[in-house]
Amino acid sequence: MLASALNLSPGTVSKALKDSYEISAETKQKVMEMARRLDYVPNPYAGGLRKRKSKTIGIVLPVISDSFFALAIEGIEAVVHEKGYHVLICLSHERYLEEVNILKDFGSGRVDGVLMSIASETCESQHIRSLLEKDVPVVLFDRVCDDVKTARVSTDDKEAGYTATEHLISRGCRRILYLSISESLSISTERLQGYRQALTGHGLPVEDKNIILCTGNAEQMKRTIEEALSQGRGGPNGHGHRGPNGPERGDERPDGIVASVEKLVTPVYLACKALHLSIPGDVKVICFSNMPQASLLSPALTTITQPAFEIGKAAACLLFKAMEKADFDLGKASSILPSVLTIREST
Amino acid sequence: MLASALNLSPGTVSKALKDSYEISAETKQKVMEMARRLDYVPNPYAGGLRKRKSKTIGIVLPVISDSFFALAIEGIEAVVHEKGYHVLICLSHERYLEEVNILKDFGSGRVDGVLMSIASETCESQHIRSLLEKDVPVVLFDRVCDDVKTARVSTDDKEAGYTATEHLISRGCRRILYLSISESLSISTERLQGYRQALTGHGLPVEDKNIILCTGNAEQMKRTIEEALSQGRGGPNGHGHRGPNGPERGDERPDGIVASVEKLVTPVYLACKALHLSIPGDVKVICFSNMPQASLLSPALTTITQPAFEIGKAAACLLFKAMEKADFDLGKASSILPSVLTIREST
Repeated sequence: MLASALNLSPGTVSKALKDSYEISAETKQKVMEMARRLDYVPNPYAGGLRKRKSKTIGIVLPVISDSFFALAIEGIEAVVHEKGYHVLICLSHERYLEEVNILKDFGSGRVDGVLMSIASETCESQHIRSLLEKDVPVVLFDRVCDDVKTARVSTDDKEAGYTATEHLISRGCRRILYLSISESLSISTERLQGYRQALTGHGLPVEDKNIILCTGNAEQMKRTIEEALSQGRGGPNGHGHRGPNGPERGDERPDGIVASVEKLVTPVYLACKALHLSIPGDVKVICFSNMPQASLLSPALTTITQPAFEIGKAAACLLFKAMEKADFDLGKASSILPSVLTIREST
Repeated sequence: MLASALNLSPGTVSKALKDSYEISAETKQKVMEMARRLDYVPNPYAGGLRKRKSKTIGIVLPVISDSFFALAIEGIEAVVHEKGYHVLICLSHERYLEEVNILKDFGSGRVDGVLMSIASETCESQHIRSLLEKDVPVVLFDRVCDDVKTARVSTDDKEAGYTATEHLISRGCRRILYLSISESLSISTERLQGYRQALTGHGLPVEDKNIILCTGNAEQMKRTIEEALSQGRGGPNGHGHRGPNGPERGDERPDGIVASVEKLVTPVYLACKALHLSIPGDVKVICFSNMPQASLLSPALTTITQPAFEIGKAAACLLFKAMEKADFDLGKASSILPSVLTIREST
């Protein structure tokens, strides 16, 4: 209808509506004006309705204020847009019950497939299995779980945890804190395993008091980190023994931090500031982060960077394979992409 | 059905499903287990289907990697969650055509109301009016447009632009760049108007060469800013006149920057680094930003902070008023919330 009204080929109209680079700005404007006049619903979606397909991919994320997820969404959308699909983003806010409700909603025909990264509260996966049983394919990315038979796209979390910890050890750290936001999330436990292995491998003790769970808002996280950093600074053996820079100064005090998620960067820096601990003089800091400002922080932050864009893209590609080929087995299609260590001033 | 299976009141079940604080963790778990066993779709949504209501609010954002929007979403969700609604987030990627397609999709019954912040490419608003004509209420926030008769919730952009510029003038800046990402967006033009007024009000000339449009990715923005900062450093009168710190050194060179959106922070800092310009020694920088890391940058960044959470919350409240009361006139319900200047090392 739109094509004949404009005397253009349906292909040209379709490309113009999808904002293809092959179509001139002038033609696009003509098409859009006519589409508006006729109150036209673009073909991809109208076609979808006829086939009872939503032409929509649902994305479930635990939080939005995180550079990793922002980049992963870009990777997902690069694929989804190419296929003429829409994306809907829903947030679980790290809560299990919100995640359950989102998946129920997604199971009612609203989306054709789901990409998700699970909430820090989530310890079981029946809600994901229920969605799969309704023939809605699901691909997990970054924060995955092992007891669901579907594709997982993540980074080499254990190796990355090992690399981060070993880097601090190579810089002379001996009492290294591991900070996480969950005791059950795959990313937390895998990275922690790498931390443990690195310490053990270098003959250092793994101490429970150095493995710190940070919950709540940024202010609460900061207080938790301050407490952890104050170990061995006061107490029966702490007072009266502080030299200007000798080993007396807090010789039980942590001298390194592995922060396992980006959210922890600000609380870690603020906690060190509050305690007058210099980074990297008193404490060396490495963080898992995709923050574009990492190099601009004072001091510039050493990071483990995940290939966020690529993870999003790979997850979306697998999802479309499952949607397009009935015999494609998602359960056998997981992939692991390597992280990168970028050394800066903070270590 | 669920309530009777559990021998609980429907109110208790409904509250448990909404994760209310009034219900114990134990009861919630019982309810969730039974809900799972019966493959129960929660009442708010099922009720919605019966009334042909989606119980869903659509949010249209230009980008996701921005602290302002992350916080605004939190404000929106505080209201939406309380009302038992879902939120769907769609991204326009600053593109007019994507925005048009999202609104078409939202107009097909997918959502009951829309909160949106418009794309930098968008210069006209027929697509928004079309949605309003379909009786889907729309509230614009932050990036608004004047030619749609609906509520707008934004910050005092003109005053904030004035305040930012006046602050730089008070610090001795005389050649101040104004950086924006669009020539049509309300936030860009209003803040620019404030910039012009402040210069004029303090007897300084407004020069076109100092009003810079930054487009493309971060790398392209950085190059644009480098060029703008290189004004008066070379050229026929520039060479051979550079003293160590006297006025000869680039006496035509810009000595201040008002960056009108957060996205510009990283390119500005990197451009100054590349040109070996010290902040605040050579160039003073102020940016509109809600970044939690502003105080941790090197140097700490002076910011104009918008009340992002409050803007999101106010916009969502107005939307629900319009959805709940047929005679509520959104066209008369706009509100403006003040921004805050936080002075740090960069100025």
